[in-house]
Amino acid sequence: MRIDTFFTIPEMDPGAVDGATVVVIDVVRATTTIIEALANGARAVYPTDTTEEAVRLAHSMGPEDTLLCGERRGHKVEGFDLGNSPREFTRDVVEGKKLVMSTTNGTRALRAGDEGVRVLPCAFTNLGAVARGIAEEGHVVLLCAGQDDRFSLDDALCAGHLIHRLVEMLDAEPELNDASRAAYAVASARKPTRRFLEVAAGGAAILAIGLGDDLVICTDVDRHDILVEMREKAITRAGA
Amino acid sequence: MRIDTFFTIPEMDPGAVDGATVVVIDVVRATTTIIEALANGARAVYPTDTTEEAVRLAHSMGPEDTLLCGERRGHKVEGFDLGNSPREFTRDVVEGKKLVMSTTNGTRALRAGDEGVRVLPCAFTNLGAVARGIAEEGHVVLLCAGQDDRFSLDDALCAGHLIHRLVEMLDAEPELNDASRAAYAVASARKPTRRFLEVAAGGAAILAIGLGDDLVICTDVDRHDILVEMREKAITRAGA
Repeated sequence: MRIDTFFTIPEMDPGAVDGATVVVIDVVRATTTIIEALANGARAVYPTDTTEEAVRLAHSMGPEDTLLCGERRGHKVEGFDLGNSPREFTRDVVEGKKLVMSTTNGTRALRAGDEGVRVLPCAFTNLGAVARGIAEEGHVVLLCAGQDDRFSLDDALCAGHLIHRLVEMLDAEPELNDASRAAYAVASARKPTRRFLEVAAGGAAILAIGLGDDLVICTDVDRHDILVEMREKAITRAGA
Repeated sequence: MRIDTFFTIPEMDPGAVDGATVVVIDVVRATTTIIEALANGARAVYPTDTTEEAVRLAHSMGPEDTLLCGERRGHKVEGFDLGNSPREFTRDVVEGKKLVMSTTNGTRALRAGDEGVRVLPCAFTNLGAVARGIAEEGHVVLLCAGQDDRFSLDDALCAGHLIHRLVEMLDAEPELNDASRAAYAVASARKPTRRFLEVAAGGAAILAIGLGDDLVICTDVDRHDILVEMREKAITRAGA
């Protein structure tokens, strides 16, 4: 297996995902929230690039079973049903619903990985399911959403722990690019804890706006044993 | 002290270097070569963005004591006096000379850091001198040249070891951004060895073109006890 990690979206050439399975990571908080929603019975999540696009798409789907979700700079968009806090996406709120979701970095990363053979949102909360789901692949790209096109420690740490899981599972050593090797080294030294994420840029930003408790879910490794997959712009439970 | 690391040039906002001392790192090979040249008696190194600019600048300086140096994709530019292999920059070749130098990533990083209060080229070969030279600063930016605007493990490793040196020297814990913390963790796990650099993208590229022996110098930690500084587009020994 070849594992190429990209710490920011611009570092990934469009050709880099040809024939690859793309794992998209935005720990704080888009992929954590998407996994939480689908684990709690949401039918599908539709990521959009902009809030305007989210509003149009939700409108076209009809209001009955659709929720409009998203944040800008961490805060819920005015008039939306939900923000991007995984704690909001409980079973009684999301079960059976379609969620249209716009977030700052996560959605862009999901769209950037769109050309891959498979696109799998990943967070600490479904780490084991993703590792098992990609263990047979030949070429895997780990695309970190980053923060405004800059390196983000929480995403790199998640990528590194995913590589550790794969190394434990595989018979042969995977081939790693420079960023994969760095992520692996970081994960050798650090475990995801709330305290660790609080001093990373993404965690510090949501702590500053009073949403620090989100980090409890963001760091809850293997909270859900589900693989989720994006197909034709909708993310659903794989095999569902 | 605040230490902000950027793994690629585009990740650094122009405003990020305001009031900061900028340490520019391109281990394989621009900053290693610049330090080697100045340690071996070169009067100054003039980095340029393009080979054309290098030719014009060298011409304007007169051919007497000027050497034209540079590489594209690792190879010496045709018609130039020297490439970018640190082994070429021996005392008998460079002593007393002015060197005009164009390299793929290193020169771009030096120019990008240009707005800093001080700009200090750094490699493993002068790590200790740089650490001592910046230990009193309030805000330090470590700018990794990277490889074609992608993460480069050798530069990140060098940044991480520089942070380790600073942590040992400083009374108070420095404040680190996400990339500084990741670089620190990588350096906790890895020492710079020829073998380690050979499997990083930059090292593998020069190994593939038969210049692998350059990595002996690139990984020779504290080979030279010199601080070098860029001022008005010329790099000289600091204090010289």
